[in-house]
Amino acid sequence: MCELFAMSANVPTDACFSFKGLMQRGGKTGPHKDGWGIGFYCAKRAQMFHDDRPCYDSSIAQLIANQPIKSEVVIGHIRQANSGAINLQNTHPFLRELWGRDWVCAHNGQLKNQPVCDQGYYQRVGSTDSEKAFVSILNHIRNEFPKKPKYMPPVWRRMHQLCMALNHFGVFNLVISNSTELMAFCSTKLFYLTRRAPFGVAELIDDDVTINFQAHTTEQDIVTVVATQPLTNNEHWVEMQAGQMIVLKKGQVVKQFYPEHAHNGSL
Amino acid sequence: MCELFAMSANVPTDACFSFKGLMQRGGKTGPHKDGWGIGFYCAKRAQMFHDDRPCYDSSIAQLIANQPIKSEVVIGHIRQANSGAINLQNTHPFLRELWGRDWVCAHNGQLKNQPVCDQGYYQRVGSTDSEKAFVSILNHIRNEFPKKPKYMPPVWRRMHQLCMALNHFGVFNLVISNSTELMAFCSTKLFYLTRRAPFGVAELIDDDVTINFQAHTTEQDIVTVVATQPLTNNEHWVEMQAGQMIVLKKGQVVKQFYPEHAHNGSL
Repeated sequence: MCELFAMSANVPTDACFSFKGLMQRGGKTGPHKDGWGIGFYCAKRAQMFHDDRPCYDSSIAQLIANQPIKSEVVIGHIRQANSGAINLQNTHPFLRELWGRDWVCAHNGQLKNQPVCDQGYYQRVGSTDSEKAFVSILNHIRNEFPKKPKYMPPVWRRMHQLCMALNHFGVFNLVISNSTELMAFCSTKLFYLTRRAPFGVAELIDDDVTINFQAHTTEQDIVTVVATQPLTNNEHWVEMQAGQMIVLKKGQVVKQFYPEHAHNGSL
Repeated sequence: MCELFAMSANVPTDACFSFKGLMQRGGKTGPHKDGWGIGFYCAKRAQMFHDDRPCYDSSIAQLIANQPIKSEVVIGHIRQANSGAINLQNTHPFLRELWGRDWVCAHNGQLKNQPVCDQGYYQRVGSTDSEKAFVSILNHIRNEFPKKPKYMPPVWRRMHQLCMALNHFGVFNLVISNSTELMAFCSTKLFYLTRRAPFGVAELIDDDVTINFQAHTTEQDIVTVVATQPLTNNEHWVEMQAGQMIVLKKGQVVKQFYPEHAHNGSL
C-alpha cells in the first residue's frame, strides 16, 4: 500500500510542515520506501518531483522539505510497491494534459482485473494498476466532456461514478486534481482537515516538529489537507466514509458525494 | 533566446559535467536567467525538474549538478524569455504522452504567426510559442501515426518536414525525444559532439571544471551531447547546418535530414 497526501488552499501555501511528516513514513516511521513523488500546481501547470529512493533519505525530498514551494494545490505520494516494479516509471503522481491543463493523480490501494480499456486517448507509460485507472478515468472524462464545461458539477459527479465503479475491483483511495479543483475519493482510508482562523499550533506525529500557523497565515487563509492517516496529533482530522468523495476548491470542501449518488454509474 | 542541451547515450550516463557548465549560463556567464528545466528518461518515463529561478543559483540545479542521475536520454533548457511570462507554466522542457511513452521537447528561438492549430488532441498549458509548436508537432504525428510504427524512419522524416515548416515562421532550434530516439533540428545554431573510446580529458568553458572521461567510462560507451553552444573548449564540436536534423539513438547519429529532404513537407 501507499500513503496519499494532498492540499488545497485559497492562497499559495507551502506544504513543508506536512511534507516533513509524510517523508518520515517513506521508509522510517512507515514502510513506504519504494519511491515517492509530489506535484505543486503553478496555475494550470504542475511542477513535479519524482524519486525512486526512499523518501526519508532522499536529497530531493530534503530540498522540498526545506525550500518552501508555494502552491494552491499539491498532490503527493509515498509508495510501497504492490503492482509494478520499483522504478521511476511506476512512481506516482501521474500527469496528463486535458483541456489545456495538467491533471495530476495519486492512488493508494490495489485493483485486480479492472475491465477498463487503456487503449483510448491516454495510455499508461508504466505498469501499475494505478496509472491504468488514471488513464481510464481521463479517457472517460475526455470522451464525455471534450471541452472543459463552464459548470463543473456534472464532471465531479461523473468522477465519483467512475471511482465507485473502479472501487469494485479492489482498494481505490484516490486524490486527483485538474489544477483548480482537488477531488479525494475514499475507498477504505482517507482523512482530511481544514485549517482556518483562529490558527493554532500543530504537532507532527512522525517527527519532532511543531508549527504555529498563526505566524504564517492571515485571517483569510483557508487550507485543507488530505492524508491516508492524520499527520498531526493535536488537530481534529475527519475520517472519510467508504465511497465518499469530496471536492475541494480554494481550500474548502465545496461538494460531497456519497455511494447513493452513483447509482447510475458505469465504466 | 535560450540555450538547449540534450544527451543520448548507449548506457545510463550522468550529465553532471555538462550540466555544471550549462547552469552557469543561466544568469552568470550567460543571460538565460528566466528559469530552466531538465528531463531525464527512465525507460519510457521522463523524470522532470523545472524551476523559475535563475539556474546558476537554483538549489534544485545545485542538487542535479552534484547528484548523478543516470539516463540514456536527457533534455535540458535554460530560458531567456521572449514569448510568454516568466513562470513555471512557460518553463521548458514540455512533456506529453503519446504511444504510451513520454515525449519531451525544448525549443530555442521565437516563432511569429505560426499558422498551426493548437486545438487538436494536445493543447498548450502555458502561453509560449514553443509549447504551441510542440503540441502542433505532436498533433500531426498522432493524427498520421496513431500507433507507434515498428519502422520509425517515416516518423523521423515527418518530424523533419514539420520542423522545416515551422522554421518558416521564425527561429526554431529544437531538441525532442520519444525516449528511445532524440531528434535535434538546427534552425540557426546548434552543435553536437560524440564521445567514444579513447576517452580524454574535457574542460568546461563556463566553469573551472575538468573531467577525465576515461575514469568514468568503459571502452564500449558512446555518448552524444547537443548544445546551443559548445560546452567544452578542447573538443571538436560539430556545427549543424540550417535545416539539418540529426536522429540520435543509443548515443550515435543514426540518420540525418537536410532541407532538400523536406520538399513535400507541410503543416
